[in-house]
Amino acid sequence: MDEFALIRRYFAQLTLDGEGVVLGIGDDAALLRPSSGCELVVTSDTLVAGRHFPDTTTPFDIGWKSLAVNLSDLAAMGARPRWCTLALTLPEADASWLDGFAAGFAALARVHRCALVGGDTTRGALSITITALGEVPAGRALRRDGARIGDAICVTGTLGDAALALRLGAAAVPELRARLDRPQPRIAAGLALRDIAHAALDLSDGLIGDLQHILDASGVGATLDVDALPMSPAFARLTTAGTRRADQLAGGDDYELCICLPEDTLDRARAALDVPLTRIGRIDAAPGLRLVDAQGHSITPSFTAYRHFS
Amino acid sequence: MDEFALIRRYFAQLTLDGEGVVLGIGDDAALLRPSSGCELVVTSDTLVAGRHFPDTTTPFDIGWKSLAVNLSDLAAMGARPRWCTLALTLPEADASWLDGFAAGFAALARVHRCALVGGDTTRGALSITITALGEVPAGRALRRDGARIGDAICVTGTLGDAALALRLGAAAVPELRARLDRPQPRIAAGLALRDIAHAALDLSDGLIGDLQHILDASGVGATLDVDALPMSPAFARLTTAGTRRADQLAGGDDYELCICLPEDTLDRARAALDVPLTRIGRIDAAPGLRLVDAQGHSITPSFTAYRHFS
Repeated sequence: MDEFALIRRYFAQLTLDGEGVVLGIGDDAALLRPSSGCELVVTSDTLVAGRHFPDTTTPFDIGWKSLAVNLSDLAAMGARPRWCTLALTLPEADASWLDGFAAGFAALARVHRCALVGGDTTRGALSITITALGEVPAGRALRRDGARIGDAICVTGTLGDAALALRLGAAAVPELRARLDRPQPRIAAGLALRDIAHAALDLSDGLIGDLQHILDASGVGATLDVDALPMSPAFARLTTAGTRRADQLAGGDDYELCICLPEDTLDRARAALDVPLTRIGRIDAAPGLRLVDAQGHSITPSFTAYRHFS
Repeated sequence: MDEFALIRRYFAQLTLDGEGVVLGIGDDAALLRPSSGCELVVTSDTLVAGRHFPDTTTPFDIGWKSLAVNLSDLAAMGARPRWCTLALTLPEADASWLDGFAAGFAALARVHRCALVGGDTTRGALSITITALGEVPAGRALRRDGARIGDAICVTGTLGDAALALRLGAAAVPELRARLDRPQPRIAAGLALRDIAHAALDLSDGLIGDLQHILDASGVGATLDVDALPMSPAFARLTTAGTRRADQLAGGDDYELCICLPEDTLDRARAALDVPLTRIGRIDAAPGLRLVDAQGHSITPSFTAYRHFS
């Protein structure tokens, strides 16, 4: 099967009904109609086999996760997903693998009405790069540089599940494994928080490393209560106080949002969200990130955030 | 060196002065301001080491070519380049390699005022995926589906140089090697032809395979004069009538434009272009692609177009 037949067979159908798509897959480039009054929000993320997902990951989950990590970046900006491109590098054109991958990709694309409008297929070691395009009303995006002293720091959902699933491997219970393999980009939460939050990002590399980006961009510090970090029932059952902190503070792949917002908007924010929002700390004037436990005692972690090239 | 330091050191500077860039590298996603009245033109292409460029290619040329093949797709749509993202997968964070790559990328980005606004760096087998974003006034893009019976088929520049350079390897003279390693995206030509041509695409996989996409999309056939195909002086000197046809008809990587336009606009098109335009055939009603020589005799090629997965 040649490249062109591949693209037609597996991916042309994913253009959906294509709102704002003047011309989708099949020309030198796609033609798209941006919404007036909006800024365009653009992100590209690559997943490499064995590095960003275990070798045991199903093709369906690889398709899902490749899109999910990109949509998560749009969620963190408060953007609505519109379109995406897919650059797929494959060792061979395996129809069964492609069926599964396309199904997983399509399942998530349909939920968020994100139309696949172009891309490339090449032969090589398995690697997927997706570029996602979203829109946000001009001037209203959630950024990393807006956190203010006194803001509450909150996270959506629960933390540590994906890291624990990775650690347990085949022994992970299904609800943990789903958190690793099928992250849910918090699109609705990002849209709802657009006019409430001061700053946001998504948690891909681990809480303390990611939060540091907000602190650096905003020129502030923070105090985190490590005993306030939200846990799923499975995570709470399978970890102890001694083992859970590394997963929750430095484990990657949760794809929850970390948000800084005024203390007095917390109730309004919770009411607007389709996912639990937990207060885990506050923004301080003093530079740096301080960790404390429920008793207010200082904690020194024995691990660091995930670093791709360390 | 960690991923974030890498991005800052090598790529943050490539955002240029960033026309239309509200927020560049450093947040979850870039924020861009589209031009009113324009359609967005989006393309993604991947280059894999050893497959899309020889292992002897310098880092500078890899940086140049990665962007060039994407800008060439924008040129083929008659679009003006605006922004791009870069997803770079590297076996190791080698500063000297990155210096060269970034310099080559930047050299071409500056020429076409294309701002790097985001992307990703990951560890793995060397592979580069770029997504280029351009703009075209609404409804005026050059497409593949507009060729009409009677149109002249033309190409910019010369054909076969890159294929010959690849075939000769280390023995290729510099002017041929430059055609393989530093293709010139025909941006100005695409813009100038926007209101003249009926259809266009860029030649990446070889003339006869690529032209077939126009014929399929437009529902027409064509006759090509294989003796009319334009040659560079080096190509003419180093090939014979017997060896040159495969390079010119099926060799990839020339990144010239193939254009269908009314016969009576040829002079106007030539006057508007910064590159030679050569008439190489015509669009016919009869389906299929016919090759003839200067005497009008039918030619049957003994080769086929490049196919990534054949």
